[in-house]
Amino acid sequence: MIAQELDTNDVLMFAFMNREALRLTAERGEAVYWSRSRSRLWHKGEESGHIQKVHEMRLDCDNDVVLLKVTQLGHEPGIACHTGRHSCFYQRLEGGRWASVEPVLKDPERIYK
Amino acid sequence: MIAQELDTNDVLMFAFMNREALRLTAERGEAVYWSRSRSRLWHKGEESGHIQKVHEMRLDCDNDVVLLKVTQLGHEPGIACHTGRHSCFYQRLEGGRWASVEPVLKDPERIYK
Repeated sequence: MIAQELDTNDVLMFAFMNREALRLTAERGEAVYWSRSRSRLWHKGEESGHIQKVHEMRLDCDNDVVLLKVTQLGHEPGIACHTGRHSCFYQRLEGGRWASVEPVLKDPERIYK
Repeated sequence: MIAQELDTNDVLMFAFMNREALRLTAERGEAVYWSRSRSRLWHKGEESGHIQKVHEMRLDCDNDVVLLKVTQLGHEPGIACHTGRHSCFYQRLEGGRWASVEPVLKDPERIYK
């Protein structure tokens, strides 16, 4: 599922949902994903505090991808990525290589104590 | 992979790529996806004329999702969806139901003759 920032339209991250995650997201108004690495529901921000408030949910034409319009909350708002960056899409293709082009806003060691 | 419109930041669609699709997209500067239903490379717009010119390619933090910044070209520009709509994400959750909230800009029967 795609999380897009409401005010800027920036794409913040991509993560998976199962049916239960989708239900909880709609119910709570906060993003809940399915963590494939941990095989469990993952309430985004449960460790980092970087909660995503969900304003709108969209579904695509073949009914298998959801787009969330969110506000990225937290002690320092606007950080969606576990690397401490605004967006997970911080690598840009430049001359055949992926270059990191977005600043780290908060040290991950301070996010995950 | 996520296609996002350069000017508006609208999320237009989500589709899959394999390594070859990614290589061709970077090489041609036009979106090439992997069609899972047809099990072949799919140069977006090859039938519809709705080519996606790629301005920038981004990669996410775990290196498995690409974000394309595109201009949605075609005889009628700005139509990414096979239903003739601007974006594939035209269904919005409203009171527990998915409602279509974006207009059809071109009849699909006129897109796919």
